[in-house]
This record gives sequence, structure tokens and C-alpha cells, in this order.
Amino acid sequence: MADGTASDDAILFDDGEHRFIRLGAGSRGTKGVVQTTQYLIVDKGRGVLLDPGGVHLFPGVVAAASRYISIDDVDAIFFSHQDPDVSSGIALWLGVTKAKIYIADLWIRFIPHFGIVDQARIAPIESAGKAIRLASGAELAFVPSHYMHSPAAFSLYDRRARILFSGDIGGAVFPDGEETAFVDDFAGHVRYIDGFHKRLMASNSVAKRWVENARRLGPEMIAPQHGAVYRGASVGAFLDWLAGLRCGVDELDALYRM
Amino acid sequence: MADGTASDDAILFDDGEHRFIRLGAGSRGTKGVVQTTQYLIVDKGRGVLLDPGGVHLFPGVVAAASRYISIDDVDAIFFSHQDPDVSSGIALWLGVTKAKIYIADLWIRFIPHFGIVDQARIAPIESAGKAIRLASGAELAFVPSHYMHSPAAFSLYDRRARILFSGDIGGAVFPDGEETAFVDDFAGHVRYIDGFHKRLMASNSVAKRWVENARRLGPEMIAPQHGAVYRGASVGAFLDWLAGLRCGVDELDALYRM
Repeated sequence: MADGTASDDAILFDDGEHRFIRLGAGSRGTKGVVQTTQYLIVDKGRGVLLDPGGVHLFPGVVAAASRYISIDDVDAIFFSHQDPDVSSGIALWLGVTKAKIYIADLWIRFIPHFGIVDQARIAPIESAGKAIRLASGAELAFVPSHYMHSPAAFSLYDRRARILFSGDIGGAVFPDGEETAFVDDFAGHVRYIDGFHKRLMASNSVAKRWVENARRLGPEMIAPQHGAVYRGASVGAFLDWLAGLRCGVDELDALYRM
Repeated sequence: MADGTASDDAILFDDGEHRFIRLGAGSRGTKGVVQTTQYLIVDKGRGVLLDPGGVHLFPGVVAAASRYISIDDVDAIFFSHQDPDVSSGIALWLGVTKAKIYIADLWIRFIPHFGIVDQARIAPIESAGKAIRLASGAELAFVPSHYMHSPAAFSLYDRRARILFSGDIGGAVFPDGEETAFVDDFAGHVRYIDGFHKRLMASNSVAKRWVENARRLGPEMIAPQHGAVYRGASVGAFLDWLAGLRCGVDELDALYRM
């Protein structure tokens, strides 16, 4: 990948009316800072941002999104969970857009701790129904992802693009210089996701549940907030791997030794 | 409790050389914002802050801590985990103190997303040894609290004060006007902690592990980041209750229905 310029962007889906774009803004990490990826859905000229990220990424993500849409036309921002790399820029995003914020109900009372937040613009996902319906009629469905890792987390499935935005699930931690934009060789990719998932995901029982739901949706791509986008055969290979993973509370002995 | 003034402070332990203080700054929530509690340990005139909180609490916590110590004399800040209500003020605290920050290794690469952070002042708990030793010789021991709820979390045990600072564990969510500073009637307190623990804590298996370690330490008080301090008989009553709790991935059916 290139050095954080427009060339890192990737149009993952485009049918003329509806586009799903991976923004290049945060695709390369600063040394010692976990790399994050932001996505923008543009539907009939209106925008939805997915996990637009923390305060230090804000200028870059605004610039990247504005290559595709006027920031005024961002109507919705989806936060998969409450972690700082996902949502600490929330007060800034509320300032530059009129967008409604979608986040799990549990975190509504926590996010004001990021700064002054206008609660009237925050929509708890549990009350928002099963999906966001866009101008074209396309649907973005909320997919439960609790304890993967956050106790209250959601993925978002774009039914029209057949892309599942998975938040932390599927996330990769690349050593400097080994970043790839897509996963085409799953066997070679496992070493970048193994430690992250074993440590962050709460248990095999919940990983299996998430995989069952994901398989039922039948995504063509899985787009995580860290690392690379799964496509082709790597989608199924990733789901098979995750359904068999022992993680979190399955392996407490070493972590709880005192 | 009073209205956020010094009268909300409580000295939980004081032997002349070593004090453990509950600061009143965040003890009453703003409507719609989860209430948090900050603690200050003063040992031979030097300070340690525990979960000093998010950006919006910063001015109040600085003022509260400065009733006991010059802010320059704060040598260490302990963050139990990465949530915004715990740690989003980190860049501000690095600015006003020369303190070293202790947080679980996993979050070191995430917290720069809160803003510019001087990584050289951040100490990963896993590498810092089993405890922080203070000027008097008193020890603050790191107590594993992973998946309770954060995948990488620690409690902190002050062996001299016999107070276990437990982060989210034991946290209460009070309806407006029902806040209490201490738990003296555990049976009456359960309704404030039940929903919070069932939803946030990852499983009964890990809750039991944490309780085993806590019992071995034998604290006289358990001081959580939300809600009220357990003392007297309520310490054991809380540990018994937690060891028996079904929570998190033990009850996935309702949460994973699509």
C-alpha cells in the first residue's frame, strides 16, 4: 500500500447508486499505534460513516471522506463499540456533521465522557430497529457482536453490497511493512489475527454464535476495523477458523495467576 | 450525599503516613451520564490516582485531588482499563503531571487514539512487576481482572490500607437520588448491581476466578469505579454473590437473536 494518500482508498462495491468505500486515511499506523480502517457508504449521494475513529485521525478521515461526498451530506455514523480507537472523535464528528450516531444502548451513558455530546443525536441501536434504511431502499442491518470483544458491540451488514463490516472481528495486527489491503491467502494471514482474537474475543461459544449469524447472511466480503478485507475464499476460511477458536475465558490459567 | 463538593470526599484509610481517599468530584452523575468515582492514595506526601476519568471530569478531579496534594506530587496514575469514562482524560493528565501511567499492555497501542500521548511515560502493567512500591514501603498489587469486563483489565490492591480498587467490578448504577457512598446492606444493594454485572462481565467462570483471588487477598473494603464502597459484611456478601452469578456468554440466546 502507498503512504496514506488517496491511493490507499478502495471502492469495494459500486453499482452506480450505492458505493461501499474503504478510506485510506488510517490504513497505515503511526509507529506504536494500532492501525485502524474507516469505511464510507455513499447511497444516492448521502453518506454513512463506519467507525470513523479517534481524535488523532479526525483531520485525515474528514479529508478522505470529502473526496467522495460533502461532509454535510453524512447522515449517519455507526460505532461498533466504545473503544477509543473507534469512537473518541465523536464530539468532533457531531460538530462537523448533522449526522445521527448509532451505538449500542449500553454505551450511551459512557460516551459523554469523551467530551460534550448532544445526547439528542445519539440513537441506541437496540431501539433503532433491525436496520438503517437508506435513500435507495438499501438496508444496513445491525448484527449482534456482543463480547466480540466489547460486551455491547454490533457489526453492520450492507445487504446490497453484500459486505459485512465487522468492527474488531477479523482484525489483523500487521508488523510494519507487512500490511495488505485484502486477504487472499487465509493460511498466510492467520499469524496476523491469531493472538488478537485469542486475547480479545470472550469465548468459543460466542464466536460460534457470531459465525452462525454471519454464515446466514452470506457476505461476499468481511471488512474489519483493523487490518485487511476478507474476500473470495478467505471469507469462508475465516469463518471456519473463528468458529473453532478457543479464546478469552476458555484459557484463563495463565492470565489469572497471581 | 451532597452536591459534588468536598463534603462528598471520604477518607477510607489513614495511618498518618498513608491515606486512601475517595474523591467527591464525580460522585454524582450528570443526568444521562454514568457516574464515576475517583480515588487518590497519598503516601508520604506523594500521590497515586486511580481511574481519574474522562475529559469532562478533569477540572473537578484536579480540584478535588489538590485538596490533599499538589498535583506536581502525583507520581503514578493507574487505569483499570481503556473505557472512555476511565481514561479519555489521559492526554490532559500527562500534561499537568509528570506521572507514570500504568495500564494493561494490550491498550498501549490504543490509547494514543485519545490524543497525543507521550508513550515513554506509559508503563505496561504486565512488565511493571507484581506491584508498585511506594515511598513508605507500602505496596499496590496488580490483580488480574481480564474479561471483567475488558479483555485486559486490572484491579489494584492496597495491602497497607487493605482496600481493593476493583474498577468496574462491583460497580452500581443508581437511579437519580438513590446514591449511597457505602454498601452496608448488601441485600438492598443487589438491585443496583445486578443488571450491570450480568451484561458486562464475560462469564461465571471468570467471575469465580476473580473472586478466588480477591478472597485470598482478604480486603476490608472493595472500592469500585462506579457506585458505592463495600465495607464490613458487604465485602464477603458481594464476593459470594459474584461467584454465583451467571453472566455474559452464559446467557447468549436473547442477545444473539437476529
